[in-house]
Amino acid sequence: MSKLSLVNLPKTAKGLETLERIRKAAEILFSEKGYYNTSVTDITTAASVAPGTFYIYFSDKKSVFRYLLEDMSHSLRSEIGLAIKDCDSRYDKEYLGFKTFFDFVKKHSGLYKIIWEAQFVDNEMFKEYYENFAERYILKIREAQQVGELKDLDPKILAYSLIGISNFIGLKWVIFDNQAVPDEVIHEIMRFIRGGAFKA
Amino acid sequence: MSKLSLVNLPKTAKGLETLERIRKAAEILFSEKGYYNTSVTDITTAASVAPGTFYIYFSDKKSVFRYLLEDMSHSLRSEIGLAIKDCDSRYDKEYLGFKTFFDFVKKHSGLYKIIWEAQFVDNEMFKEYYENFAERYILKIREAQQVGELKDLDPKILAYSLIGISNFIGLKWVIFDNQAVPDEVIHEIMRFIRGGAFKA
Repeated sequence: MSKLSLVNLPKTAKGLETLERIRKAAEILFSEKGYYNTSVTDITTAASVAPGTFYIYFSDKKSVFRYLLEDMSHSLRSEIGLAIKDCDSRYDKEYLGFKTFFDFVKKHSGLYKIIWEAQFVDNEMFKEYYENFAERYILKIREAQQVGELKDLDPKILAYSLIGISNFIGLKWVIFDNQAVPDEVIHEIMRFIRGGAFKA
Repeated sequence: MSKLSLVNLPKTAKGLETLERIRKAAEILFSEKGYYNTSVTDITTAASVAPGTFYIYFSDKKSVFRYLLEDMSHSLRSEIGLAIKDCDSRYDKEYLGFKTFFDFVKKHSGLYKIIWEAQFVDNEMFKEYYENFAERYILKIREAQQVGELKDLDPKILAYSLIGISNFIGLKWVIFDNQAVPDEVIHEIMRFIRGGAFKA
């Protein structure tokens, strides 16, 4: 799925600024009221643009929703990529990957929340979002298994387990309790991931 | 939150049968089309009851949604409780807890899906659902730490990590790929939880 098919990208600085206002208004409204309680008119009113202006950039409400998710997915991946680029070990990459993910969720908690509504708005997109993320994770796990850093656990099971851990820790600390995930929590997650929870 | 406040329980067998038809129709419609795309009229039509009959049992659409979640939460907890009641070790309880959870998700995949929409329909209920579940989990983890079966990891972090693992494995196998979670997958999760993913 290409971002270009979801949005009609403007060519002028003024156009880009208008698109950004619409995007931001949609992000806030979807995360506060949910997709179904938000209308295109709500978005254009909040963005202070004429009702018809919306359709210069997007064909419908679903397009702007998909655009937001696509944008989020892209930003998250590139922030994680940047954070871990100088790491040598899988251990450091996991640690910084978790840290970057939690920072991202804190910074974009509204955006993060709407991913769950995507199941109902566009189920294929929701599935793609996680499967793409897992696909890359699996490759990295395999690499770390080949160099002997990770045990030979099934990479798909391990990838979804790690995604599950990060999502539910993020849900509890950031979404439920509205706080950043402290470094000590990440260290504790790493202790669990490194050596397990059961005594030998 | 009591179930009784959400539903007006009928006193006759015929009334119970009607309530069950409404409940079932709501479960199917919410999970297929989502809460916001389903009207009370859709529910009564699918249940083959007169439009006004709905209001004998529920005050509004949100009540039936909350009733379904409350019911799911109760059933899941009691099925897990029953499955693990004769286990001596935390290890066996975890294994059977995962197995029962995955079976439950497979059997009620529609119901399981709508929990995520609860964030938008009734955020407090969504939060309560996971926090209640985690609260009980934390107690069990503490018990297993006291008898020396589990390491001294932070119980809250461990509880949310385990809930995250079960939810995302369930999401991938049952919701995305529409299959039961095989026993081998549960064994592999247990290998990870027992001894971690990194080589010593």
